[in-house]
Amino acid sequence: MTRPTGAQRPISRGPGARRRVLRAALEVLDEHGLAGFTMEAVARRAGASKATLYRHWPTASALLVDAMDAAFEPLPTPDTGRVETDVAELLTAFVALLDHTPFPRLLAAFIDAAERDPALRTLHAELTRRRREPMLAVLLRARQRGQLPAGLDPELTVDLLAAPFFYRRFVAHRPIPPSLVAEVTARVLGRPS
Amino acid sequence: MTRPTGAQRPISRGPGARRRVLRAALEVLDEHGLAGFTMEAVARRAGASKATLYRHWPTASALLVDAMDAAFEPLPTPDTGRVETDVAELLTAFVALLDHTPFPRLLAAFIDAAERDPALRTLHAELTRRRREPMLAVLLRARQRGQLPAGLDPELTVDLLAAPFFYRRFVAHRPIPPSLVAEVTARVLGRPS
Repeated sequence: MTRPTGAQRPISRGPGARRRVLRAALEVLDEHGLAGFTMEAVARRAGASKATLYRHWPTASALLVDAMDAAFEPLPTPDTGRVETDVAELLTAFVALLDHTPFPRLLAAFIDAAERDPALRTLHAELTRRRREPMLAVLLRARQRGQLPAGLDPELTVDLLAAPFFYRRFVAHRPIPPSLVAEVTARVLGRPS
Repeated sequence: MTRPTGAQRPISRGPGARRRVLRAALEVLDEHGLAGFTMEAVARRAGASKATLYRHWPTASALLVDAMDAAFEPLPTPDTGRVETDVAELLTAFVALLDHTPFPRLLAAFIDAAERDPALRTLHAELTRRRREPMLAVLLRARQRGQLPAGLDPELTVDLLAAPFFYRRFVAHRPIPPSLVAEVTARVLGRPS
């Protein structure tokens, strides 16, 4: 996939151009990892000039955060009337994201980068906070409806529900069978009565 | 920290020399990340020749795995007679490892590398499996003693206990207060009766 240098088209204006650069950024990250993630590499892949990229993003880190954000479609907040079903729906959507999208590779690159770059760590924390929102909304609503104990800590519950999937995928490298969603939900929320 | 090339001392034989190379490997990884982790960089830091390193480790990945293994002291398996206390002891030791050692940086580098290198993924899975052993032993013994339900899945329980700490540290980048150990233990094992 070489593209002759000097054959760079000027980046066109508007949201289409921005999307093109973000897509190029994801491709570069996916193929070359964080070590190969430079403004120059993304500019070349997007067919844009480095100067144009710098007009939109002050640093490669800022571009990386925007690309990561664009890769993650926020999940809609389900409301089936049963908290176990809502939770399972969100976890199932998340497992699909781990299986079928560039998200896990991006996340892995972020995990490593955040160890060395405090600004990136802060931004990754913010992205994670936004990803947690639908699950948090489901739990808070269920607590309000009396479907969960009043004393339940919703933030810790999100940790307990989401963490095993990250852990299996990135640390233990063990398979995530479809049954795991129901098992984790039952263990964390208690057996349905 | 430059060291003139050509000033490489021959690596001495015996376990001391091996330890010196592994320590150098950890230092290189800690400072430069995976992108800078090459046989040449480690040889230079250890004051050894590249040829000597290749006699002990066929690839940089093999060296990385040994270095990672050496960085993780296996935790002794506690036996206080109370499963909640044993579990809390292991989790507390693990939190200290996340706070005060090069382990988290190494793990972050592994997480990223495992996405791109299936051999490294397999080896990381094996290292994780060994790290899980003391917790697994505690749970199996407690189940045998009737302190935990006979139907409890011990592997899933290890996931549920360990995962929140990885998740907070590497994904959510949220603080791990000392109280978290007791909270996670109580939620996963059930409130002590």
